[in-house]
Amino acid sequence: MKDRGVDILSIGDEILIGQIVNTNASWMGELLNRYNFKVRRIISVGDTEAEIASAFAESIEKVAVVLVTGGLGPTKDDRTKKVICDFFNTHLVLDSQVLEHVTQFFAQRGKPLTELNRLQAMVPEAAIVLPNHLGTAPSLHLIKNQTHFIFMPGVPFEMKEIMKLQVIPFLQQNIKTTPKAQRTVLTSGLGESFLADKISSWEESLPQNASLAYLPSPGKVRLRLTFEHPQQEMADRQLEEWLSILQQIIGDLIYGFEDDALEQMVAVALRNQHKILALAESCTGGAIAQRITSVPGSSAFFRGGVVAYSNSIKEQVLGVDPKLIQTYGAVSEEVAKAMAQGALKLMQADVAVAVTGIAGPEGGTDQKPVGTVFIAFADQQQCFAQQFQFGNERLRNIEWTVQSALSMLRKQLLTING
Amino acid sequence: MKDRGVDILSIGDEILIGQIVNTNASWMGELLNRYNFKVRRIISVGDTEAEIASAFAESIEKVAVVLVTGGLGPTKDDRTKKVICDFFNTHLVLDSQVLEHVTQFFAQRGKPLTELNRLQAMVPEAAIVLPNHLGTAPSLHLIKNQTHFIFMPGVPFEMKEIMKLQVIPFLQQNIKTTPKAQRTVLTSGLGESFLADKISSWEESLPQNASLAYLPSPGKVRLRLTFEHPQQEMADRQLEEWLSILQQIIGDLIYGFEDDALEQMVAVALRNQHKILALAESCTGGAIAQRITSVPGSSAFFRGGVVAYSNSIKEQVLGVDPKLIQTYGAVSEEVAKAMAQGALKLMQADVAVAVTGIAGPEGGTDQKPVGTVFIAFADQQQCFAQQFQFGNERLRNIEWTVQSALSMLRKQLLTING
Repeated sequence: MKDRGVDILSIGDEILIGQIVNTNASWMGELLNRYNFKVRRIISVGDTEAEIASAFAESIEKVAVVLVTGGLGPTKDDRTKKVICDFFNTHLVLDSQVLEHVTQFFAQRGKPLTELNRLQAMVPEAAIVLPNHLGTAPSLHLIKNQTHFIFMPGVPFEMKEIMKLQVIPFLQQNIKTTPKAQRTVLTSGLGESFLADKISSWEESLPQNASLAYLPSPGKVRLRLTFEHPQQEMADRQLEEWLSILQQIIGDLIYGFEDDALEQMVAVALRNQHKILALAESCTGGAIAQRITSVPGSSAFFRGGVVAYSNSIKEQVLGVDPKLIQTYGAVSEEVAKAMAQGALKLMQADVAVAVTGIAGPEGGTDQKPVGTVFIAFADQQQCFAQQFQFGNERLRNIEWTVQSALSMLRKQLLTING
Repeated sequence: MKDRGVDILSIGDEILIGQIVNTNASWMGELLNRYNFKVRRIISVGDTEAEIASAFAESIEKVAVVLVTGGLGPTKDDRTKKVICDFFNTHLVLDSQVLEHVTQFFAQRGKPLTELNRLQAMVPEAAIVLPNHLGTAPSLHLIKNQTHFIFMPGVPFEMKEIMKLQVIPFLQQNIKTTPKAQRTVLTSGLGESFLADKISSWEESLPQNASLAYLPSPGKVRLRLTFEHPQQEMADRQLEEWLSILQQIIGDLIYGFEDDALEQMVAVALRNQHKILALAESCTGGAIAQRITSVPGSSAFFRGGVVAYSNSIKEQVLGVDPKLIQTYGAVSEEVAKAMAQGALKLMQADVAVAVTGIAGPEGGTDQKPVGTVFIAFADQQQCFAQQFQFGNERLRNIEWTVQSALSMLRKQLLTING
């Protein structure tokens, strides 16, 4: 039996050779998921007639709807229309409405209509033509063996408009969905397997209609919790109930939901508390400042930072006592604290975070191997540092350090406030 | 007959629901293309046993090699190993070498080995285990009906290491390809259409067996030049000949080839000239320092930087005369130059780069709209600044500024040297 789901088929050599990343498909997947339609597969094939035809043939056996992007442009590498005619046993005819639209489109832009553009008005006779207000290639809707194929242009903003205005309403009328409630919980502070351990009894008691996915990346693990239920209300209620238990177990590790970025959470806390931040970075080399300043309007709560990559900058700019560096080493709790206090004073800030560590690949010792990092926090009342041991890959260590520093800062701001 | 090509199969619900963009597949496609291996399809399926199994069954009919990512992690949403055992008619056994690796991996990080981690050492008996030096999930190689399946972890940096060190060498030994010579030329300093204009007569005289692709991104345009020829030698020779003509035309815009990063080129120049760099960043908020320090060993030529996000830091830390800011504004040629000179002096460096600008979305005026940026260079002999006008999108403006600052620094270092 056919799955009532959706296949996304992306056509274009540029996807297969990695020249472009298939962001169209992920955008469509996100939209379909939000409206509760299930994507069975995302398939990318090249501009080859045989490959396109075989993808059609496979999807028609499996799903109710196939959403196709790409291959409808005017240039010669586009074979889709020919395959459509063969597969749906039809032929191209001139569509006068499309021709008028294309003619107007170019006239409005003061450009002549080329023969290539004229060809865009040739459409398969069996197709329902869906207008493309933003471009010249029309969207096409064809049906075979009760499977609906909707062909859209590959240009992202044209595709998005057609998806929102035409495809989603069509799906809502024609596909029954199982109600679902879903939340993505963002955590920071524990690795995937340790987090899994910590919530194992909660996870094991989840009901049958629940599913949980772990999505780890450096310094954070996202947990996606889903409940399916014939009644939307019940799914929503279950989600809230189980989330509230989860928050009791790992509330201190949760920094946000869905698309929340850690730096945005920090920004919100700083703004609400009218606090000014300063940074002193050694091993992260400016990456924390970069994350903070990626938030629009960050000049309201971020005064500045010092990238103290050498000891001389730690001493001369941040005022770290050279004796501390001699005695404990540049990568030490003492120096991290002195850097945070130095940044606080130098930049007359309310809170400061400092990091010093060995990102690698060089610089590790037996006592302090590559991946050793100290992160310090300072404000007018207190100053402390925490030691971390990350891995042995430079860029990943930097990413871990940034994420951990932001996580510590956020936690500290919440503690101060609460 | 089976295609001698490669299928890329990505496993994970998070791809289908658009929670992550499938950058793994495009990275793999790009690498495979560079080594002349043809990708037939990229397929993404969810964490469902039936879907994974049906994807295996389809690919085995069509291609010689299937590269699979995802589904090998320690948590329960990973079904791949079970499907592998069924499909390849084998069962899981404990691999003592993998167990030792996993045990050591956690011991080195001072963390206990959980039961979940221990499970990673269970591998299908029929599999050849490829070591994963950077993570805990091993890579697996299985063969059925003369099709090779290579299973890799979904974590990008682990997958990339395995692709480069193990998969590509394996493919080179086992798959015959059509000879091709290809080079990606990295340029900075001219936008796509201006670059196309500048090289138009060269491009038009390229022979039939050549192809040229433009790959633009903020602050740079990559040109991928390919020659196909039955004889590898001829393809290589043609490539070299046409590249050398291209270099005569746009040599000053070319900063590297293939994966060369602009920061690496800057690092090489600084190292060769025994020069120490200092930075002063306003609108880029540490992003230039972050790029410079992403280069391993950067402490040899980078002393540090100041993220002078507020005027007070520009004045008090970098020593910019407050009158300059009052007279010309913080975003001005004069302030950019003073920041560069301040950084040079404060950090006792040989060369300094400073940037000040309006990244947006707020802060633009009629005279200085969002996207206005000044980039200054200073050494002991000279100090100058250049004005840029980028777009109106914050993160893109930051990226353009970083790229332009690194490009200016590289050019200046070459000029000093030459």
